[in-house]
Amino acid sequence: MFSSEPTSPQLVVEALQSELGDSVSTDPALLESVRSDKSGWVAPGLPLAVVRARTTEHVQSAMRIATRFRIPVVPRGAGTGLAGGGVGTHGALVISTELMNEILEVNPADELAVVQAGVINQRLSDVVAPHGLVFSPDPASKAISTIGGNIATNAGGLLCAKYGVTREAVLGLVVVLPDGSLLRTGHRSVKGVTGLDLTALLTGSEGTLGVIVEATVRLRPIPPGDVVTLGAFFGDIRDAAAAAAAITAARIGPAVMELMDHASLVAIDAYSGTRLSAGGGAYLLVQTDARGAVDEGAAISEILTGLGADVRLAHDSAEGEALLAVRRNFHPALASAGEVLIEDICVPRSRLADMFATIDEISRRHGIAIPTIAHAGDGNLHPNFVLPPRASQQAEGSGEQNDQWVPASVWAAADELFVAAMKLGGTLTGEHGVGVLKKRWLENELGPRSLELQRGIKAVFDPLSIMNPGAVF
Amino acid sequence: MFSSEPTSPQLVVEALQSELGDSVSTDPALLESVRSDKSGWVAPGLPLAVVRARTTEHVQSAMRIATRFRIPVVPRGAGTGLAGGGVGTHGALVISTELMNEILEVNPADELAVVQAGVINQRLSDVVAPHGLVFSPDPASKAISTIGGNIATNAGGLLCAKYGVTREAVLGLVVVLPDGSLLRTGHRSVKGVTGLDLTALLTGSEGTLGVIVEATVRLRPIPPGDVVTLGAFFGDIRDAAAAAAAITAARIGPAVMELMDHASLVAIDAYSGTRLSAGGGAYLLVQTDARGAVDEGAAISEILTGLGADVRLAHDSAEGEALLAVRRNFHPALASAGEVLIEDICVPRSRLADMFATIDEISRRHGIAIPTIAHAGDGNLHPNFVLPPRASQQAEGSGEQNDQWVPASVWAAADELFVAAMKLGGTLTGEHGVGVLKKRWLENELGPRSLELQRGIKAVFDPLSIMNPGAVF
Repeated sequence: MFSSEPTSPQLVVEALQSELGDSVSTDPALLESVRSDKSGWVAPGLPLAVVRARTTEHVQSAMRIATRFRIPVVPRGAGTGLAGGGVGTHGALVISTELMNEILEVNPADELAVVQAGVINQRLSDVVAPHGLVFSPDPASKAISTIGGNIATNAGGLLCAKYGVTREAVLGLVVVLPDGSLLRTGHRSVKGVTGLDLTALLTGSEGTLGVIVEATVRLRPIPPGDVVTLGAFFGDIRDAAAAAAAITAARIGPAVMELMDHASLVAIDAYSGTRLSAGGGAYLLVQTDARGAVDEGAAISEILTGLGADVRLAHDSAEGEALLAVRRNFHPALASAGEVLIEDICVPRSRLADMFATIDEISRRHGIAIPTIAHAGDGNLHPNFVLPPRASQQAEGSGEQNDQWVPASVWAAADELFVAAMKLGGTLTGEHGVGVLKKRWLENELGPRSLELQRGIKAVFDPLSIMNPGAVF
Repeated sequence: MFSSEPTSPQLVVEALQSELGDSVSTDPALLESVRSDKSGWVAPGLPLAVVRARTTEHVQSAMRIATRFRIPVVPRGAGTGLAGGGVGTHGALVISTELMNEILEVNPADELAVVQAGVINQRLSDVVAPHGLVFSPDPASKAISTIGGNIATNAGGLLCAKYGVTREAVLGLVVVLPDGSLLRTGHRSVKGVTGLDLTALLTGSEGTLGVIVEATVRLRPIPPGDVVTLGAFFGDIRDAAAAAAAITAARIGPAVMELMDHASLVAIDAYSGTRLSAGGGAYLLVQTDARGAVDEGAAISEILTGLGADVRLAHDSAEGEALLAVRRNFHPALASAGEVLIEDICVPRSRLADMFATIDEISRRHGIAIPTIAHAGDGNLHPNFVLPPRASQQAEGSGEQNDQWVPASVWAAADELFVAAMKLGGTLTGEHGVGVLKKRWLENELGPRSLELQRGIKAVFDPLSIMNPGAVF
């Protein structure tokens, strides 16, 4: 059963075309575009073809052919990943679910929706808003990323500390397995404990087990009542992190709690002509919502003022937006300065200040600026590296060693960040995933026994090891 | 590698005793007591021995010996399960983690605790209460069940619709695998997406993959502000279910929302001398908490009154307690009438009224009373069967066909319940688990492909198939 038909790229493409017609493309521009994602990583070589599936049957056909010819398969959504988890490597078949973008059902009574994998995250929230509902997973990419991709990476966002990560919003999945068969997991009820939780196992599996084609997702009521936004300047990031910890210690769980260090404020000032970095060494942005937000906002304001911060409490939504704009300008500010490697580590909340101090130390020792923001409510930090301009041959895809678009000095600093996060009881990736970029640190975090079990599970789903073979494992 | 040493029960017990000393017991009374749980199921035959582990090393030793001799292993907590998932079947080695009851760490800053598997659920909440924190999974058994058992069954409770099931409270696990090796999963941070989510996979795995010995669990702030309790009588259960749906449709998510049908009220009246069943055909109990509870309670009261209910809004905590007492008296009331089979199905919330109607129809057709309560916020119903007195030989454990303690007519009615729940888009078990009692319906819900994958995953963890072989699969 493990022998394969003799393969030539030509034969495979012909087999795909005979079953899938114009859903198969070998257009050079398309092949080129799927070699990378938003991480900046460019895969070596060119993929064989892209299947732009419009139906579940398309995905099943493509998978059967991939299995028949032992072709590596890379599932891909909108290509907004930040770890190279959905990029078309040399000779691979990329299966894109971007065109499977139908919202199949909105059920306000059950507070759920059934969507195809290619539905854009924000679109679902827009469609269900008239029912007073929202799809709460809120990755920064939500305006452009697909729900299938969000699930494949178990995407996080700003609101996770209060409203949970993507996993908590997924009730059930339809997945095409490598042999082309269909797996249905989960249920339409909020609870259910029949058998092993394959829904959770597939959430965050980064395309290594199968292709997610459909999802039943949980919707939540739009929080009723007011939204209160506060911005606070502190002398340094340690004080700001301590203030975030003090809010937690008061047993307040804000919807948003974002920390920005001095290097971040400097970058924003350079971009938008503001003078934030003169206001203080660090900035803490807090937003509370739902019934009782006003009381909660007042309590937070008192805590921050008591800690010596310069606090601004927004009195209306326009002022709130202005405070949020500081945070929103961060990524554009960095992008305007050059190509950016966005890192993603997570530590226990109590170690945030330590992690910021470590980042500062690494930054000084390596002589590299590392502007860092953090989702303080869940200890998730994004240290950022602005990279020097890319050598031109990289853009043409000739390179063997494609991570050399990131200078060795930056990888050395990043390596120290990862090791430090793990030492503090944290993790290599809070919400972006392992993809190809963090594979080399995987065993360091998981340990050999866990990795062995994970590889065993992968082999149960994917005995021929054709699913996203360059990623994670 | 798959050959085993020649086995005699004597040899195995000697090997256990030589490594584990007085942590091994073959005391007949103890062996007898671990043959059953709170479901009423009594396992056929007697287990070989019970290891009352006090350390992780004890569990590791026991597992190594079980692997060496190919002895089936049944992990067990406090024995409060309701599906026969932790009972000592003939010739099995029962590994109890009940004595591993140390709270290893309480970390208020990170809102987490590290506990041994045998810690009683309520005890953790008591210990962390002075920090303003609570362990939110709240199975009805929380005063007597262990956190290890809660995790092994992904236990639910009354508060799940608002505060999530056990899975959402588990950050990481330490698990002894069948070969005696140790697996660590998860992390101390709120987020983390490194590799496959083995923490979620093990949560609800009912002892089929390994023995959970330690858990890092998430704590939540005790909801600040008021608690508002309402009780409402309705003409019939259909109206009461519609009222619960109307609360959901108003995008209110109460902490507690419990439905009780007429047969439940009759049972309570008979037990406590009340006249509830004269008040109406069904009862809806709602509790809201946290900031804004008063507003929310008023909104709920208006909805219920508008639907024609006789609503009582508690004005203080004593009155609230009195309303809750109605619900609390339900299980004692049934237990006073005889031995009870507590069923556990879950349907999408919008199908609650249909499910109640189906239960009523099944009840009439079979001529069996099926008093039913439901956690209306998540569509989880508990239909209850009061059983005739047990034949005496069953209690002595001679039986081959031990589920005959439940009359065939009851199983026939229960079978119809399960099939109906699945037809409504629901599940065989919302929170109690599959155990031994629901094995025969497992494939019906999961389908052959999912079951095949789940068995494959089990084989990765447990290649000799010694883990809880009578349960689930």
